[in-house]
Amino acid sequence: MNSVKIAQIAASEGREVELRGWLYNKRSSGKLHFLQVRDGTGVIQCVVFKDDVSPEVFSQCDHLGQESSLVVSGVVRREARSPIGYELSVRQMECLQEAEGYPISPKEHGVSFLMEQRHLWLRSSRPHAVLRVRGEVLKACRDFMEREGFLLVDAPIFTPAACEGTSTLFETDYFEQKAYLTQSGQLYMEAAAMAFGRVYCLGPTFRAEKSKTRRHLTEFWMIEPEMAFCELDEDMEVAEGLVFHVVQWVLEHCQRELQVLERDLKPLERIAKPFPRVSYDQAVEQLKEQGSDIQWGQDLGGDDETLFSSRCDSPVLVHRYPAQVKAFYMKGDPQDSRLALCVDMLAPEGYGEIVGGGQREDDLQTLEGKIDAHGLPRETFAWYLDLRRYGSVPHAGFGMGIERVVAWLCGLHHVRETIPFPRTMQHLYP
Amino acid sequence: MNSVKIAQIAASEGREVELRGWLYNKRSSGKLHFLQVRDGTGVIQCVVFKDDVSPEVFSQCDHLGQESSLVVSGVVRREARSPIGYELSVRQMECLQEAEGYPISPKEHGVSFLMEQRHLWLRSSRPHAVLRVRGEVLKACRDFMEREGFLLVDAPIFTPAACEGTSTLFETDYFEQKAYLTQSGQLYMEAAAMAFGRVYCLGPTFRAEKSKTRRHLTEFWMIEPEMAFCELDEDMEVAEGLVFHVVQWVLEHCQRELQVLERDLKPLERIAKPFPRVSYDQAVEQLKEQGSDIQWGQDLGGDDETLFSSRCDSPVLVHRYPAQVKAFYMKGDPQDSRLALCVDMLAPEGYGEIVGGGQREDDLQTLEGKIDAHGLPRETFAWYLDLRRYGSVPHAGFGMGIERVVAWLCGLHHVRETIPFPRTMQHLYP
Repeated sequence: MNSVKIAQIAASEGREVELRGWLYNKRSSGKLHFLQVRDGTGVIQCVVFKDDVSPEVFSQCDHLGQESSLVVSGVVRREARSPIGYELSVRQMECLQEAEGYPISPKEHGVSFLMEQRHLWLRSSRPHAVLRVRGEVLKACRDFMEREGFLLVDAPIFTPAACEGTSTLFETDYFEQKAYLTQSGQLYMEAAAMAFGRVYCLGPTFRAEKSKTRRHLTEFWMIEPEMAFCELDEDMEVAEGLVFHVVQWVLEHCQRELQVLERDLKPLERIAKPFPRVSYDQAVEQLKEQGSDIQWGQDLGGDDETLFSSRCDSPVLVHRYPAQVKAFYMKGDPQDSRLALCVDMLAPEGYGEIVGGGQREDDLQTLEGKIDAHGLPRETFAWYLDLRRYGSVPHAGFGMGIERVVAWLCGLHHVRETIPFPRTMQHLYP
Repeated sequence: MNSVKIAQIAASEGREVELRGWLYNKRSSGKLHFLQVRDGTGVIQCVVFKDDVSPEVFSQCDHLGQESSLVVSGVVRREARSPIGYELSVRQMECLQEAEGYPISPKEHGVSFLMEQRHLWLRSSRPHAVLRVRGEVLKACRDFMEREGFLLVDAPIFTPAACEGTSTLFETDYFEQKAYLTQSGQLYMEAAAMAFGRVYCLGPTFRAEKSKTRRHLTEFWMIEPEMAFCELDEDMEVAEGLVFHVVQWVLEHCQRELQVLERDLKPLERIAKPFPRVSYDQAVEQLKEQGSDIQWGQDLGGDDETLFSSRCDSPVLVHRYPAQVKAFYMKGDPQDSRLALCVDMLAPEGYGEIVGGGQREDDLQTLEGKIDAHGLPRETFAWYLDLRRYGSVPHAGFGMGIERVVAWLCGLHHVRETIPFPRTMQHLYP
């Protein structure tokens, strides 16, 4: 007998099949045991009727602990009351391992306890749903990039220098040199964009941030597209197109998961292109009206982002921040030298920044001046300066944080639930 | 006028279009300049006829340096002698930046020099072709996994412990603890397989190996599938299916790139399923016949792999190595306690190991014994042991090295050319 997956059970209606999985939950009444069995693709109720099975099997069900591993055979029956429409009438059951004392019971546990049990917690319905959404978000990102003609170019993890400031770098000994873990693949993507036109990387990035906010991990995944012959307006359009595509894809492919997470779909279904474009100046004005004490010239803090985006129905593109709060590689605004040609996208419902990017400085002398002004070592950036020496062109790109997008789409408070094994200041285990 | 990509130029035959790119090569003769322009999607010959353009444009072409950035307008003409079937009759040209002294001329350079110029070398036709093949290999891997019902589950990079031995670990300070960069996502994939059935990770992994061989990088990408309810035979079938799919996909989608690389296609076209299965015992016998001094009980060294696989027409699955040369988590062979239920796949034409995997030890006490015997700290593996405590099932998986597969498919001697920014003992820059 071939074993089947619960997700494909409908195709076997009326036939005897074998399922392989784990006991997720159980209740018994007299001559019946109802075993909820999960196999990673779904959960099905397996009905063990005393007269249908051997006495050994029936009595084994009495003391079967949660997460015991099972091979169950039986007939697939249509059952209107089942969430998946089918249940299994058990004929035979083999228990591979009787589990005892599984630490995560169906009752409520604190997140801190569950995080320590992350290797087991993954089996529960909530993390299960979140990580399936994550998988679809990553797929949607890649599909969009491919459709738009971007080549995947993996950025290196070991780098000889800092890109976003040195205070939040992880450092390692590298054969008697120092190497740092990348904070962003952007500089490398700029080199690749000059070779391939449109490129992106999608990989882990690292920040040794001491902050314990709900938006930060020390290890997080980013997608970073970069485009040659591209200016800020087109950059914003591509970011908008990517986010819109991801939202539509998840709405279409993750209905069941979003239901498990009790995500209100209306705010997601409402999202339409174009997303509003708001200048930093306008955003500061609005924040002041909302009661923030932000002053012109300051970056938007986490609280400002929450405040601003809690009033929004759509992701908003906030552009042209003051150059002083942005990285050295941002191109200055020719219309107003105080500003940078940059953009952040803030997700609605208080989620805040999910995208940051902009146009890159493409003039050699200006860039050299900025590197000096930021006190960065010119020799480390020699290769990066070469890109302005040999065929410099206007170019732009952005980074989108995968975990923040997943948190928003799933309606989660904290990004730590959006990655299989989260790494924070406190958590390096399991 | 809309700008078009060279790869889509055929659609614009007979029309005037704008191209944006870089000068790749040039020759001139009297009233004509022939500019080879690349835009990342292809290279096209742009013909500048003196009578068709302004005197300024024509004379600018005289001294235009390699990699100058250009916006060229002209009419797309069919041209049988062109490798892409079309050329451009130039009407107008704007040079965004005149590049001078580009260090990589069309003449031959040593690989060591080119590696130092990797940020620019990416623009040349050879690395261009290799990285496009890499992109398709990664896509083919993901497509196969998706088709076979595997969920992408990203493994963490920071880990509290070593999986493949401590001598080759990169270490970093992690908020007053020590963290290590992952050498493999496998242990985490085992946890995820118990939650989702079939999972895989695809990300960078790290080994601080002091070896300077053509098969090693300090930072390399691996795809690591893991399957619950899976034994060695099925594991080999999945690895075979993945490699076969990747080969077919590349043959179908990378004809042009493989031609640029002068790859002989016959050895790839010959590959068919099933791949030969050979036991370690048989492999050792064959190696001895071929003149190797390998003794039963030793691992296959790089030279042995080259020797063995240079005689093969197909990837070969070598299974059941002596347990003593394999990692602690390998399941012992119930037929012969000296052996492990493991498999390596060796690529033909002397390329050697591209896949390593096997069935995992699923018995709690046996695994505890192995952890002790290997002198590993049990508390670090407490979570991993939990997987054998709560619903243990037979499970198996493998890792496939992306760079080694790309090197083989492209026919490259050294893996360093298969990753955008290679990291070796000597190379951390650019």
